[in-house]
Amino acid sequence: MSVSRVCIVGGGVIGSLLAGHLAQVCEVSVIKRRREHADALNAEGLRVTGKSELHARVQAAADTRGLPEPDLVIVSTKAAGLRGAAQALEGHFPEATVMTVLNGLGAEEIVREHGDWQLVSAVTFMSGTKHSDTEVEYILDTETWLGPYEDTPFARAREIADAIVASGLKAEALEDVRPAQWSKLIFNAAVNPVAALTGLPHDPHFAAEDDPADLGHLVHGLVDEGKAVARAAGIELHDDPWEMNVLATRRGSAHYPSMLEDVDAHRPTEIELITGSVVREAARHGVAAPLHTALYALVTAKESSWS
Amino acid sequence: MSVSRVCIVGGGVIGSLLAGHLAQVCEVSVIKRRREHADALNAEGLRVTGKSELHARVQAAADTRGLPEPDLVIVSTKAAGLRGAAQALEGHFPEATVMTVLNGLGAEEIVREHGDWQLVSAVTFMSGTKHSDTEVEYILDTETWLGPYEDTPFARAREIADAIVASGLKAEALEDVRPAQWSKLIFNAAVNPVAALTGLPHDPHFAAEDDPADLGHLVHGLVDEGKAVARAAGIELHDDPWEMNVLATRRGSAHYPSMLEDVDAHRPTEIELITGSVVREAARHGVAAPLHTALYALVTAKESSWS
Repeated sequence: MSVSRVCIVGGGVIGSLLAGHLAQVCEVSVIKRRREHADALNAEGLRVTGKSELHARVQAAADTRGLPEPDLVIVSTKAAGLRGAAQALEGHFPEATVMTVLNGLGAEEIVREHGDWQLVSAVTFMSGTKHSDTEVEYILDTETWLGPYEDTPFARAREIADAIVASGLKAEALEDVRPAQWSKLIFNAAVNPVAALTGLPHDPHFAAEDDPADLGHLVHGLVDEGKAVARAAGIELHDDPWEMNVLATRRGSAHYPSMLEDVDAHRPTEIELITGSVVREAARHGVAAPLHTALYALVTAKESSWS
Repeated sequence: MSVSRVCIVGGGVIGSLLAGHLAQVCEVSVIKRRREHADALNAEGLRVTGKSELHARVQAAADTRGLPEPDLVIVSTKAAGLRGAAQALEGHFPEATVMTVLNGLGAEEIVREHGDWQLVSAVTFMSGTKHSDTEVEYILDTETWLGPYEDTPFARAREIADAIVASGLKAEALEDVRPAQWSKLIFNAAVNPVAALTGLPHDPHFAAEDDPADLGHLVHGLVDEGKAVARAAGIELHDDPWEMNVLATRRGSAHYPSMLEDVDAHRPTEIELITGSVVREAARHGVAAPLHTALYALVTAKESSWS
């Protein structure tokens, strides 16, 4: 089995970057929630600008009907779209490997509830900006790491990583992707809710630790709590989340975390898969996580303020 | 010395309720930051509706010039206006008692930096709504407590309380007002930043403790931290802030805390005098206050997001 036909579910930045690149080396179909989005992609194709300059032909649809049988399905929705995506796949493409590329923990379990596909876990650090339904800008050309979930053979993860690399993106197959997944989890849990609550993009405030009121103390405290939870869960982190935070704030232009975009737009956030995961893992392993628990309650309450 | 001429600095709800009532039994002048506000009051007087129905004549000005020498000055600005008010009084009215009615701790010290007036500390639980520069609605007819600051004789606090009671408001002089001041401080520090960050008015979410993500756990944690700080500072609280919170959320219509109004309007909040006071007192007495420290950083960062 190789990777020659890919179906991508989730039309955000990550799904669009994967679709645009993979279409250079495979046949790519995409499932979009909105029919007009699918129509636009069928008519115009998908344009990638920035670090890559590409134009891709993709076959788009609002559900699985009529799409060719893929050997790889990539689920790259936001947390709020995950259950719907898994339901849409239920009963379809039984021979395909399904790879999840979401923030937080637990996406694989949710997909598993809807079918017994072979599963691969991925975590990505690339980023970009969607300019329209048919154009995405590739901004940070950082890596995607992926590894087997449950009894998927490592060789399968390597085939997928090879296809992604051949398409022009950076990817690496890891025997165990959880150390990278947890590093990103702790980074996201320390940064995204703070951005969502303060209205600040991920800027130098997040690394400032000079004055007692500086925000960096809180972010550092969140990272330290997250590291203690990882330790209790037996995870040796792939990268230090505090260093990831400091480096990211020095990149020049401040990143606008998606949780802040969600709050601005009064949409459900990814708090449940991100901070909720840290809080649940902390409880499971008997570790205190008062700061994550506080932010979990604050962002959850903020969502309830506009419902 | 008695209370026959009162000058009120600060044109918010509390200053307006005090001015409207005290004008029934004393001569009242008011200092307003905005000249048009002063002009409107001189032309139309001040109307109180709700729990009282009054119309008061007051003499209004934008500074102390031309105002009669008062025997009592009441400073009831918001935190952001306190330094300006104290500066405007500097060098004036040396015989007057100055009474501060602000949230948080430390207003007296700031006034003291600008003159050696006799000082009285007050904390009020009454509330209302300003409908215009010349009309205020009296909603919660709860008490104002006041007591001597430094070497002010208790008899002077009692004279002021008597005048306020004679004017139709509820007031009580206490030998030591700090237990009441701290009760309100801890209540405000547990409620106001949470409202400011979540966008929720002070509603039943703040007392909910059923589900693990419920906001009441955070509010309760903040109250418990605040009580530990009070204990370390040798303060025996006048009221239990958690009970104050539960009672207030059961009043029917949810109160919209001024810190949430400030955030909505992108104005500086009272975070420094409220949560900042708790954090500083915790540090002074060697008590941990991680939740207050987190909210202090979040609200301070939120202010910086719009500056």
